Amino acid sequence: MTHGRAAAPPRFPVTAGRPGRGLRQNYHMPLDPEIAARLKRTPDGLVPAIVQQYDTGEVLMLAWMDDEALHRTLTTGRATYWSRSRREYWVKGATSGNIQLVKQVALDCDGDTILLKVDQVGAACHTGDRTCFDADVLQANGPS
Amino acid sequence: MTHGRAAAPPRFPVTAGRPGRGLRQNYHMPLDPEIAARLKRTPDGLVPAIVQQYDTGEVLMLAWMDDEALHRTLTTGRATYWSRSRREYWVKGATSGNIQLVKQVALDCDGDTILLKVDQVGAACHTGDRTCFDADVLQANGPS
Repeated sequence: MTHGRAAAPPRFPVTAGRPGRGLRQNYHMPLDPEIAARLKRTPDGLVPAIVQQYDTGEVLMLAWMDDEALHRTLTTGRATYWSRSRREYWVKGATSGNIQLVKQVALDCDGDTILLKVDQVGAACHTGDRTCFDADVLQANGPS
Repeated sequence: MTHGRAAAPPRFPVTAGRPGRGLRQNYHMPLDPEIAARLKRTPDGLVPAIVQQYDTGEVLMLAWMDDEALHRTLTTGRATYWSRSRREYWVKGATSGNIQLVKQVALDCDGDTILLKVDQVGAACHTGDRTCFDADVLQANGPS
């Protein structure tokens, strides 16, 4: 820091609180480099995350994560995504209360897809449906 | 076709067979326009397809479809994808025998993700694992 000037605001949020009490020290640390090295991202830096109800196996939705969203998901236990339309982080259920408690996080064989097993509180879909796939079945019991 | 030369191979596969028997007339017709109008595609014209074992609920893999791959999947009953790396259509199991018999196809609420419920013959993953998510669990029984 340059002497003789007022301190500039920090470029990234810092965590308030006394050390050892309420200070989530991992919150603003980057994603574990060993995990980051295994991710294969889109040109936008994102990885699709399939979200599944951990006990029933229902596929609830698909969302997108960047490294920071994955880091927050792993460290907070609440599913956190990157909203491509709003261009911001999005803690699922932060406004609706329909949160997702993280039970398991896995990467696929290529490192380009995440599978998130969660316990979904309430409806996963913003339409009020339990899953985002309930309303629009194109084909059932098709040829096999 | 030019006379006096050996016939060039057709640029696209054509279907052999007598009309009315083995002639899959829908095969080269485009995707139903009513379905096509509901798809929201990436800039590359693709939609991610989550593939799930229809009876156990296992999430097997994620692959990508364009309109033609979805059309082929709906009309043949065999899961067919677009390979982003090889830039070609890919009938799952065509070489390995580990085909996917399509049981249900659904679109999500935004029209930007497909959920394919299939009956997977053998392993879904090219590594030989049952699913592409078996090998790399980042976190299990995390904070909730």
